[in-house]
Amino acid sequence: MLDVSSFAAGRWIGPGADARPIESAITGAQIARAGGAPLDSAAMLAYARDRGGPALRQMSFHDRARLLKALALYLQDRREALYELSYDTGATAKDHLFDIDGGIGTMFVYASKGRREMPDDTVLVDGAVEQLSRDGSFLGQHVWTPLRGVAVHVNAYNFPVWGMLEKFAPALLAGVPSIVKPATATSYVTEACVRMILEAGLLPEGALQMVAGGLGNMLDHLGPQDAVTFTGSAETALKLRSHGELLRAGVRFTAEQDSLNASILGPDAAPGTPEFDLFVKEAHREMTTKAGQKCTAIRRILAPATHLDALTEALSARLAKTTVGDPRQADVRMGALVSGAQKADVLAKVETLRSETALAFGSVTQPLGKGVAGGAFVAPTLLRCDDPDAARAVHGVEAFGPVSTLMPYRDLDHAVAIANRGGGSLVASVITHDPEVARRVVEVAGAWHGRLYFNDRDAMAESTGHGAPMPHMVHGGPGRAGGGEELGGIRGVTHFMQRTAVQGSPAHLAAVTGRWVPGAPRTPAKTHPFRLRYDDLTPGLSLTTDAREVTLEDLETFAHFTGDTFYAHMDEAAARRNPFFPGRVAHGYLLLSFAAGLFVEPAEGPVLANTGLDALRFLKPVVPGTRIRVELTVMARHPRVPEYGEVRWHARVLDAENAEVATYELLTMVARADA
Amino acid sequence: MLDVSSFAAGRWIGPGADARPIESAITGAQIARAGGAPLDSAAMLAYARDRGGPALRQMSFHDRARLLKALALYLQDRREALYELSYDTGATAKDHLFDIDGGIGTMFVYASKGRREMPDDTVLVDGAVEQLSRDGSFLGQHVWTPLRGVAVHVNAYNFPVWGMLEKFAPALLAGVPSIVKPATATSYVTEACVRMILEAGLLPEGALQMVAGGLGNMLDHLGPQDAVTFTGSAETALKLRSHGELLRAGVRFTAEQDSLNASILGPDAAPGTPEFDLFVKEAHREMTTKAGQKCTAIRRILAPATHLDALTEALSARLAKTTVGDPRQADVRMGALVSGAQKADVLAKVETLRSETALAFGSVTQPLGKGVAGGAFVAPTLLRCDDPDAARAVHGVEAFGPVSTLMPYRDLDHAVAIANRGGGSLVASVITHDPEVARRVVEVAGAWHGRLYFNDRDAMAESTGHGAPMPHMVHGGPGRAGGGEELGGIRGVTHFMQRTAVQGSPAHLAAVTGRWVPGAPRTPAKTHPFRLRYDDLTPGLSLTTDAREVTLEDLETFAHFTGDTFYAHMDEAAARRNPFFPGRVAHGYLLLSFAAGLFVEPAEGPVLANTGLDALRFLKPVVPGTRIRVELTVMARHPRVPEYGEVRWHARVLDAENAEVATYELLTMVARADA
Repeated sequence: MLDVSSFAAGRWIGPGADARPIESAITGAQIARAGGAPLDSAAMLAYARDRGGPALRQMSFHDRARLLKALALYLQDRREALYELSYDTGATAKDHLFDIDGGIGTMFVYASKGRREMPDDTVLVDGAVEQLSRDGSFLGQHVWTPLRGVAVHVNAYNFPVWGMLEKFAPALLAGVPSIVKPATATSYVTEACVRMILEAGLLPEGALQMVAGGLGNMLDHLGPQDAVTFTGSAETALKLRSHGELLRAGVRFTAEQDSLNASILGPDAAPGTPEFDLFVKEAHREMTTKAGQKCTAIRRILAPATHLDALTEALSARLAKTTVGDPRQADVRMGALVSGAQKADVLAKVETLRSETALAFGSVTQPLGKGVAGGAFVAPTLLRCDDPDAARAVHGVEAFGPVSTLMPYRDLDHAVAIANRGGGSLVASVITHDPEVARRVVEVAGAWHGRLYFNDRDAMAESTGHGAPMPHMVHGGPGRAGGGEELGGIRGVTHFMQRTAVQGSPAHLAAVTGRWVPGAPRTPAKTHPFRLRYDDLTPGLSLTTDAREVTLEDLETFAHFTGDTFYAHMDEAAARRNPFFPGRVAHGYLLLSFAAGLFVEPAEGPVLANTGLDALRFLKPVVPGTRIRVELTVMARHPRVPEYGEVRWHARVLDAENAEVATYELLTMVARADA
Repeated sequence: MLDVSSFAAGRWIGPGADARPIESAITGAQIARAGGAPLDSAAMLAYARDRGGPALRQMSFHDRARLLKALALYLQDRREALYELSYDTGATAKDHLFDIDGGIGTMFVYASKGRREMPDDTVLVDGAVEQLSRDGSFLGQHVWTPLRGVAVHVNAYNFPVWGMLEKFAPALLAGVPSIVKPATATSYVTEACVRMILEAGLLPEGALQMVAGGLGNMLDHLGPQDAVTFTGSAETALKLRSHGELLRAGVRFTAEQDSLNASILGPDAAPGTPEFDLFVKEAHREMTTKAGQKCTAIRRILAPATHLDALTEALSARLAKTTVGDPRQADVRMGALVSGAQKADVLAKVETLRSETALAFGSVTQPLGKGVAGGAFVAPTLLRCDDPDAARAVHGVEAFGPVSTLMPYRDLDHAVAIANRGGGSLVASVITHDPEVARRVVEVAGAWHGRLYFNDRDAMAESTGHGAPMPHMVHGGPGRAGGGEELGGIRGVTHFMQRTAVQGSPAHLAAVTGRWVPGAPRTPAKTHPFRLRYDDLTPGLSLTTDAREVTLEDLETFAHFTGDTFYAHMDEAAARRNPFFPGRVAHGYLLLSFAAGLFVEPAEGPVLANTGLDALRFLKPVVPGTRIRVELTVMARHPRVPEYGEVRWHARVLDAENAEVATYELLTMVARADA
C-alpha cells in the first residue's frame, strides 16, 4: 500500500484518518491512499509567497532556465521508476512516453526557450518601443514582471507527470512558486515525481509544494497576485470559475477543459491517397492512446459522405487488431481506464450517445493478462451518426474513453459547421493535401478552436500528432474548451506575469529594460569598443567614427565590382525618373560596407565575428559627394556560452547635416572577460 | 428636453414610459430622458451576428482601418456639436479634449496602426514560425481570427465619447460588431456621437448598435464567441463577472475598474528641482481634470517625508487658483461632477477618509455662473495622512471627484509598498530624474500596476500625462483595477479575436497566412521578378541566380575599397585562431553585395528601391574559392500608397554544396499594376 503524502511548508505530511483509497486500474484492488490529513493552507501560501517567490525572483530568466534543464536531466535519469509506477494507472509503455517523457521534454523546451528567447534579466520586454512624442523624448514600452504570489495548479488524472510539469515549468521560468494539486486517482505518480524534484536539491525552498487529496480552503486565501490553473472537466471548471472568493479577490483563473474535438478527412483525401491512410492511422491512435483519456482526443470523426463507408471499414479493421489488457504485457496495445468509476461513466455516456448513433465497431474480447477481471477495461468503440445536423448528444456528450463517432459531411463548409457544433475545442484536425482547404478552415473555424492541426503526405513523417500539445504552441481553446491558454512557448511564461505599460524618457526606459534605446544617454568609449570584452560592453557605450566621402567613382567601382549596376546608381536621367531618388545614389550595400570600414577595428581582439544584422532601413538617399559617418552604440547583450556572448549594437549612418541615412542593429559575438 | 434613443436592429427606439430622467450637472434641472422602452435583445444580437459580423469579416484589416479613418474624419468635422452637448455633463472645454478629441484620436491611431502593423488580409499572424520538426516539413504558427459574435461595451459616465470609441475602434478593426451601452447620466452625448457615425453611411449594417437605459436580458443571450467589456466601479464589475450565464456560456469578460492610483514624488525630486514643479503641475491636473472623475486620477500622493510640507504648500497654492463653476464661462478652470447623486457620494467618501486624514486644502468659494445653485460642484479637496502604514481607508475608499490624499514615505521601497497597498491599479507614476529609481519601481511594483508612468525634466515637454491612457499602451490593471486589458495598440484588437495554434506543412502555413514560409513550394518566375509589378509578385514566386566565385582577390579588393580590413578577412594565421573561422573568410557585406549583384535586374522597371533588410544571419563562413548563388523568393506584400507597395523577399545565399551561407529578408518598393 502506497501512502501518498502532501509536501506542505517544507514538510511531508502523510495520509490522515479520512484518506481516500486509490485503486489499480488493472486489477481494481486498492494500491494506495491519499489525503485526509488537515493542511494549513495559509502556511503553505506564506511559504510560497515569502520564501519561494523572493528566492525565484532573485534569479534571472537564464538562471531559472538552467535550473529547469538541470531538473529535467535529473528526472530523465529516473524515469524508469515513474514508468513502473504508471502501469497501475492503466497506461502502456507507449502512453508513458506522452506523460513522463512528454513532461520532461516540456521542461527541456522551456529551458531552451528561456535561454534563447528571454534576456538574462528579471524584466521581460514585450513588443516594440512606442513613439509617444514627436521628438522621441517620451516613449512607451510594455514589460512583463513576475506575479508576486503563487500559482496553484489543479490537475487531471490522465497525465500525472506531464500535467504537473507543463504548468510548473512556465511558472518556474516566470519566477513564480507552484502548489500542485494532482487528481487523487493517479497522485502516487505525481508524488513520486515531486519527491525526485525536491531530492535533486536544486530548487529554492518554497518553489514547489504538493497537496494530496483535497485543496481544503486554500482558494479562499488567494489574491490578485495569485493564479489558479485548472485542467479537467467543464463541470469542475465552472465550479471553480464561479467561486465567490476567487471572483471577489480578482484571482487569475485559467481552465483547459475536455472538449469534443473533431478530425476531418479532407474533401481531397479519397481512399487510395496517402492522406486517407494517414487519417485512419491518426484517428486510431487518438482513440487508443491512454485508452482515449486525453482532453485532445478525437471524439468526432468527419468524412465526406461518399467515403464514410470506406473509412468505417478501414478504421474498424485497425481497431480490431488493438489488443487490450494489462499494459505490462508486451502484446498489449491499449490499457485500462483509470478506475471502475470512470469505466462506469464512459459506458453510461456511450449509452446516451447510442440514442443518436449506430455501433460501427465494438469488440467483446476479454482483456489480456492475469487478475484483470476487476480492471477498468473498455473496448475501443466506434459509433456512427448519419445525421450530424439533427443530432445533439454527439456534439455535447463526451465519453472520456476509447470512443469516437463517425459522421458524414457534404462539403467543406458543412464539415466545419459540424466541427463548430462542439461549442469550442482544444484542437480540430484536417488531413488534406490541399493548402486552400487549410486556409478556408482557419478563416471559418479558427475562432472556435485553440489549435488547428493539418497533415498530409509531405508533413506526416515529422508531424507531432493531432492529440499532442507541443510546448511551443498554445494549448487551450474557447467555449467548451475553457476559454484559457497554456504553453505556447514564452506566452505560457507570461501567464504567470503581469504586463505593465511603462512610459518615460529614453533614459528611464533604458534603465528599466537593461537595453539602450535611441535617445538614451550615450557614453563615448575611451578605447575602441571592439577592444573591449563582452562584460565591459555596457549598453550605451558608443563610438562615433570619422567621416568619409562617398564619391561618384566609389559608385562606379562598387557597381562593376559587385555586378549591381541597378540604374538608380548608374544612370542620372533614369534615377531622376524614380520617385525615391534625386539622381544617381549610392548602393545601400556600399553604405553598409563603408560604415563597417569606418567602425571596424582591424586587429585581433575580443569582437570575434559579425553574425547578423536586423532592422536595416535606408532612410535618405545618398548622392555622390556626401560625407557619411557612423554612430555605433551597444544596445543589448545576450550570453551564449561561457566563452562568448552576443552583443547587439545600434548603428546610425549620418550625413553632414546629421540626417539619418540608414539605421540598423548589428550582431556580433564577443569574447567574455574570463575567456 | 432631449430624448435619448436606442439604436436596435436597424431602428431608432425612443424612451418609453419608464424612461430615466437625466439632469444637468450645472443646474441640476432635468434636461433629458433615456431608456424605458423594451428592446428585443435576441434580435439585436442576431442583427450584429448575422449581418454586421459577416459584412465586417469580408473586409481586410486595411479595409477596416480605412473605414475607421473615414469615420474619425467625419466626427472631427462635427466635434463642436459634441462639445456643446458635453458642457451639461459638467465638463470644461479642456475636458472635451480628453473625451471627444481623445476618442477621435484613438480612432486615428487604430486606423494608422491597422494599416502599418497589420496585413491587408483577414488572418493576423502572431509571433514567429515554430520549428516542430528537424527537417522543417512540419511547422507551427499562431494566428488570430475575429470572434464570430458580438462585443457588448458597457461604459462609464465620465467619458461618453472616448469610452465608446476606445472600445469600438479596436473591435471594428478586429472585424467584430459592437453594441454600446453608455451610462445613462451622459448617454445623450454618446447617442449624438452614434448618430453621427451612422449618418456617415460608411459602416456596414449591424456593425454598431446602442442601448439607452438598461441592458435588459441581453447578457443571458451571449455565448463563447461574444465579449463583454466593462468600464466602471469594482462593485458593478463584480456583479457582471459573477453573472451565472456569462460564466456558464464562457463569455469573454474584461473589466477596467476605478483604482486608487498613486503618484510618487521621487526621492531625488527636492523642492527647487524641475521635477518638484512638474510633480505639482501633474498632481494638480489629475485632481481637477474632469473634476477628478477619471479612473486614472491620482488618489494618493506620496512624497518623501522631508518634502511633504513643501509639497502641501505648493499644491494648495495651485489649487487655490482653480476657479470652479459653469464650464461654459471662460474664467472657469474646473466644472461639476456629473450629478447630485455623485456629489453626495463623493462628500460621503470624503467623510470616511477624514477619519484617517487631516484637511490640507479645501476651498469654500461659491461656484461661478448663473443658476448653478443646484449644480453638482465639489471644491478641490486635498487630504493629508501622516501614517499611511496604519491607515486603511485611504488605500481602499475612492472619492471619485477632485479629492486626493497626501502621504509621507521614508525611502523608495517604502513608497512602493504604500503604492501597492491599493491592491492593484491602472497607473502609478513617479516623477524622478534618476533612471535607477524607475528600474527599481518596475521590479518591485510592476506586478501591481497596469501602467507605470515616469517623467522628468527631459521628458516633460512631450509627455502625455499620468492620467491619459494612450491607444498605444495597455489600459487596465490587476486586482482592484479589474484584471483586464484594453488598448495597447494591436493587442487591443486581439481582445476581440481568437488565437489559434496552426500546425501543418510549410504549404499549409503559407496558404493560411498568405505569406511564403521557407519550405513552402517556390514557383520559378518566367521573367525576372524585378520586371513584374507589385500585384503580380505573388508569394512563392522565385528566382535562382547563376553562381559566382568569391576569390581571394575579391576579399583584398573589397577590404581596401571599403576600409574593412578586419583580420579575419586579411590574415590567415589570425583568422585560424578565431573560433568561428577556418582561415581567411569573405566579408559578410561582400557576400550581401555580390548577392545583390547576382539578383538585381539593372534596367528601369517596377522595382523602385531597396528600402531595408531584416533578420540577416551569416550561417557559414565563406572561404576564397567558394561559388555562391542566391535563391530569392517573394515572401509577403504590404500595400503602402496607390502607386506602390512593399514587397518582402526571402533571400538564401548558398554555396556549391547547397549549404546556407546567409539568409535574410529584403524589403523593396514596387510599383502597382495601375500606377
